[in-house]
Amino acid sequence: MTDRLNSQDGPLEHLIRLLGGLPGLGNRSARRIALHLLSKRSALMVPLAAALQQAAENIKDCSTCGNLDVIDPCAICRDETRDNSKICIVAQVSDVWAIERTGAYRGRYHVLGGLLSALDGIGPQDLRIESLITRIETAQTRPDEIILALSATVDGQSTAHYIADRLLSSGISVTRLAHGVPVGGELDYLDDGTITTALKSRSAAA
Amino acid sequence: MTDRLNSQDGPLEHLIRLLGGLPGLGNRSARRIALHLLSKRSALMVPLAAALQQAAENIKDCSTCGNLDVIDPCAICRDETRDNSKICIVAQVSDVWAIERTGAYRGRYHVLGGLLSALDGIGPQDLRIESLITRIETAQTRPDEIILALSATVDGQSTAHYIADRLLSSGISVTRLAHGVPVGGELDYLDDGTITTALKSRSAAA
Repeated sequence: MTDRLNSQDGPLEHLIRLLGGLPGLGNRSARRIALHLLSKRSALMVPLAAALQQAAENIKDCSTCGNLDVIDPCAICRDETRDNSKICIVAQVSDVWAIERTGAYRGRYHVLGGLLSALDGIGPQDLRIESLITRIETAQTRPDEIILALSATVDGQSTAHYIADRLLSSGISVTRLAHGVPVGGELDYLDDGTITTALKSRSAAA
Repeated sequence: MTDRLNSQDGPLEHLIRLLGGLPGLGNRSARRIALHLLSKRSALMVPLAAALQQAAENIKDCSTCGNLDVIDPCAICRDETRDNSKICIVAQVSDVWAIERTGAYRGRYHVLGGLLSALDGIGPQDLRIESLITRIETAQTRPDEIILALSATVDGQSTAHYIADRLLSSGISVTRLAHGVPVGGELDYLDDGTITTALKSRSAAA
């Protein structure tokens, strides 16, 4: 493509190649973004470069829960007002953000950093599972509930099973998110598995 | 969203806000990209920051044609093997890239930097039109054809009309791209305007 314009790989081609490798972006959107940035060099491009550099330098993984923050332990782990008796297990930092946006949970988190996957060759040693066990064993206030907020996929459910198994002997109650009809969801558009699960888990109408 | 995690606007929120303002990206895709970058800090995030900084510093607008390159005049304007008798007028640098990808054109370019638009308040003085006139008048080899490769939209066509008018007295032949059925296009999916134009401009079957 742009290699017609310059005999070697210039800074523009290099930038477009890096941008095009980001999730959700391809060659075309990367070119569009690069041109947009070059049209706003001082207002957008230089600040973005600085923001990337600054984030790369300052944002750390929380050594307790695996969340991302500028401080370690992270703001959630430091927050004295949160409930130490509950730990919510999630796969990714984005799941922490999703649950935090709801404002419905005030306990602690533990980010696994992925899900067990036989296909992708991801085993328990690749995830933050040992650190979860150690965290529970050494906690000053022992949690009384572990909430498995993992995806309702094969990988998510096998990870949930594995963690529930590991925690069996601890006597801590292990729960998982309810499966059912999404709020606002229309039955007609739902898959059979969800409708079956929602039927089985039906509750008394208020 | 993430402002629940930190009381002030931290480097992560700042980065996500900047990324979310790029064309084609929203809040959700910006969060996804930020997390992806943070998971590959040294392999991807720092190089991307450096590439942005380097591109911002080194890439210039070509003072002759308006193309982007690390040298001024740009590689296309410097290329002695190209045909000086043709100048192809395009709206954006991405249009230069699109035409260069075809390999079907070996003349010069002139990038307007946009299109005339009454709605957006973009007049002739906002585009590289005067510099086009000056370029043609002062050229050592006077071009004998100006190709208007502008979009087949209202703005594109009014810009084409304006430039054709300005060049009327020069006696240079002004051409525009053919309108018709795209190669590989199915008639059934084409709009009426394109089919009408293609019918009117029909040519003898080979």
